[in-house]
Amino acid sequence: MLTTTTRRIASLLLGLVIWFTPVPAGLDPQAWQLFAIFAAVIFSVISGALPIVLASILGLVAAVMTATLEPRQAYAGFGEGLIWLIVAAFLVGRGVINSGLGYRVAYLLVRRFGSSSLGLGYSLVATDALIAPAFVSNTARSGVLFPIVCALAESNHSRPEDGSRRHIGAYLTMTSMAGLALSSGLWLTAMGANPIGVALAAGYGIKIDFGSWFLASSVPTITAMLVVPWMLYRVFPPELKATPHAPIEAQARLDEMGPLSRKEWTTLATVLGLVGGWAFAGALGIDTASVALLGFAVLMLGGVFTLEDLRKSGGALEILIWFAILFTMSSELNRLGFMSYLGDQLAGGLVDLPWPLLYTSLIVIYVLIHYLFVSQTAQLLALFGVFLSIAVPHVPGPLIAMMLLLATNFFSVITPQGSSCNVILAGSGYVTSREIYKYGGLITLANLVIYLVIGTPWILFVLD
Amino acid sequence: MLTTTTRRIASLLLGLVIWFTPVPAGLDPQAWQLFAIFAAVIFSVISGALPIVLASILGLVAAVMTATLEPRQAYAGFGEGLIWLIVAAFLVGRGVINSGLGYRVAYLLVRRFGSSSLGLGYSLVATDALIAPAFVSNTARSGVLFPIVCALAESNHSRPEDGSRRHIGAYLTMTSMAGLALSSGLWLTAMGANPIGVALAAGYGIKIDFGSWFLASSVPTITAMLVVPWMLYRVFPPELKATPHAPIEAQARLDEMGPLSRKEWTTLATVLGLVGGWAFAGALGIDTASVALLGFAVLMLGGVFTLEDLRKSGGALEILIWFAILFTMSSELNRLGFMSYLGDQLAGGLVDLPWPLLYTSLIVIYVLIHYLFVSQTAQLLALFGVFLSIAVPHVPGPLIAMMLLLATNFFSVITPQGSSCNVILAGSGYVTSREIYKYGGLITLANLVIYLVIGTPWILFVLD
Repeated sequence: MLTTTTRRIASLLLGLVIWFTPVPAGLDPQAWQLFAIFAAVIFSVISGALPIVLASILGLVAAVMTATLEPRQAYAGFGEGLIWLIVAAFLVGRGVINSGLGYRVAYLLVRRFGSSSLGLGYSLVATDALIAPAFVSNTARSGVLFPIVCALAESNHSRPEDGSRRHIGAYLTMTSMAGLALSSGLWLTAMGANPIGVALAAGYGIKIDFGSWFLASSVPTITAMLVVPWMLYRVFPPELKATPHAPIEAQARLDEMGPLSRKEWTTLATVLGLVGGWAFAGALGIDTASVALLGFAVLMLGGVFTLEDLRKSGGALEILIWFAILFTMSSELNRLGFMSYLGDQLAGGLVDLPWPLLYTSLIVIYVLIHYLFVSQTAQLLALFGVFLSIAVPHVPGPLIAMMLLLATNFFSVITPQGSSCNVILAGSGYVTSREIYKYGGLITLANLVIYLVIGTPWILFVLD
Repeated sequence: MLTTTTRRIASLLLGLVIWFTPVPAGLDPQAWQLFAIFAAVIFSVISGALPIVLASILGLVAAVMTATLEPRQAYAGFGEGLIWLIVAAFLVGRGVINSGLGYRVAYLLVRRFGSSSLGLGYSLVATDALIAPAFVSNTARSGVLFPIVCALAESNHSRPEDGSRRHIGAYLTMTSMAGLALSSGLWLTAMGANPIGVALAAGYGIKIDFGSWFLASSVPTITAMLVVPWMLYRVFPPELKATPHAPIEAQARLDEMGPLSRKEWTTLATVLGLVGGWAFAGALGIDTASVALLGFAVLMLGGVFTLEDLRKSGGALEILIWFAILFTMSSELNRLGFMSYLGDQLAGGLVDLPWPLLYTSLIVIYVLIHYLFVSQTAQLLALFGVFLSIAVPHVPGPLIAMMLLLATNFFSVITPQGSSCNVILAGSGYVTSREIYKYGGLITLANLVIYLVIGTPWILFVLD
């Protein structure tokens, strides 16, 4: 076993080695330095050397003090609306639990599906998949799932702090995170980047609409939705497995709770308002983060979320810090051309391969590069065009386009910061960053195999 | 007694009345709308309708949803380095307390000055005044004072949550905040805006250096340092007054503590490093916020501040939210020309008054306008030139320049957001925002009288 100190030194050394390696031709030296810092940060988290928030702070300080980033650039991520959508949705989620409403929904789910942990896992994924087409922000959707996951865990006596997180909370959290990666790809309108990708594909003469997207996605996505919760149940098992009495207990708790309290009504109305606001935000030109902040303010005005609750909500500060910093670093790497340089280098030399091999290699590379990205949309904007241009003369266009778009969703759980929709669940305390790297990587591998093996013939069949 | 609901409705009405009042000639309509929102926010805090964090969030949402501010502008404040200096200094302050070092310094102060609350108040102000010339950031200085104030309060069994805050904590917090307003004006190098003001004054042919600044400032500032803690002791009294046994108890506690622990050494080294970093940040071109974040990271690496501590530090999120939002609104009002318009309107008509009356009116107006500003530097940059131009043909130049520069410091406690150096202490939970408005206003009035009555002849005597 390596000590923490050894891991910390190794992370530092990795950063120094990259930093002092000669800058590859055609690359901005600033991009290379930033990559060295970013790589050290990510490695320190994967290796367990540092918690993600501390690794991120040290990365930010290193970037500023070495003048790799101007202070103004380095702190800019904290002022992104997306970050405040996450923070507000996280706080609203705590409010949903405080009000009792989270428990009520959890008991309703347990009453129906709660005789096994696996059943609860499937019920969460199914719920997510069914509400997904109404949420173009999967981050907002994760904010709705988060209190249900926490309440399900807590009602089964599984808490983040007291050593009982693996009881059931860790399994449900990881399953929900995996479910979000799949539900976001199931519908054209289940994630913000999907319509952007469809618009970009149209530029290559590839037409995809709501119906054809769902048709192409349905078979591989539903297969993955069936396989992944079961696979997690095997490799990351909850301690609690069969719970035959749980539905009866849930009914008893529901009877105890009686009708909805005033706080629950306030919360229910707020959540419905949020869902409506988020669903129509695009059409009405409303800022989603402001919708979320308004929802949070309403919960405070209604006494569901108190000032004392806020003063205990350091977890929101924690996710704000690490996600904003990693988001900034990844965005700057992209802005400096590092990402498209890397995509070109990795994919450009493959065009002489037979097309099925070229196709498979491009998808695998596209997925692996997501280790460096802190936004699904950013990767799509940076690399979708690059990869499509390389592939289109050789690979059937609708196939490669659709698979890249699906990959943009199913790869999101490869790291804790791989999608903003992971962040709230990652902040629950039920799973560690290291576990997300490990099991998120495994889930992504399973998704990759399922989509390539089952999705490829299916898409060729329905889209060509 | 007005109910909270009545106060909330009154705040909303105030905003609506201003919003629908015809825009004054020469003013940008956007500036007028933003002023309506800002006024409603401030009024809701002063009247006790809303806690400052909730008022700020509602103000931000209103500004975004009415398209008064673009989302990008509205969230920009969260990405200001200054805000992250505050957050990091706040967290470091908690680390200083966690390590035990805060208590040790507190006991040392109590052993020497602790036989009365008033004595402790004076000792805090004196400590601040003596270390001030080495801190060009008074925000950083407040981060050093904060753990001492908290430890002094806690060691006297006065805590923010359990109803004992008025025991001694509230008095010491308010006194320290008042002391910062004075210490920042005592030395040319005790606050970031001071050298800027001196540079601006040089443009009007007025020369001020480190020595002449201190000479001019010394008599009124030291007078105020003697008067204000005593005045607060009368109007905002601590419940604990004479504590003849406290020094003996403090000695006993120090004996118990024994020599510095490893955590205390880590913390002491970190704080000294921070002080050094902040002192030389300007000369070396280092970003002060990164210095603070590095200090915080060192405390986490050293185990002084744990992940669990961070997850309980929602107070840092609270001050981050309200200060960033108010800072943004005030900055935007300034950028849109509202502040200089107001300064011109209020001060421009006074030039025909006899000079002593003109001088006094200008200073009073300059101080009152600070109700709208969320940064001392911003007000200096916006209005120092305007006011100096109006005054200089009539009032002795060195007098009006020096008094405006001193006012830029002594008015800082007029609101919780009047200076970034208030924010950390305001976030301690020992004083409410309303109390800061009330007693901060009173202190500012006392400062105004002292500086005008004693400072004016003194400055004329030494600077002319």
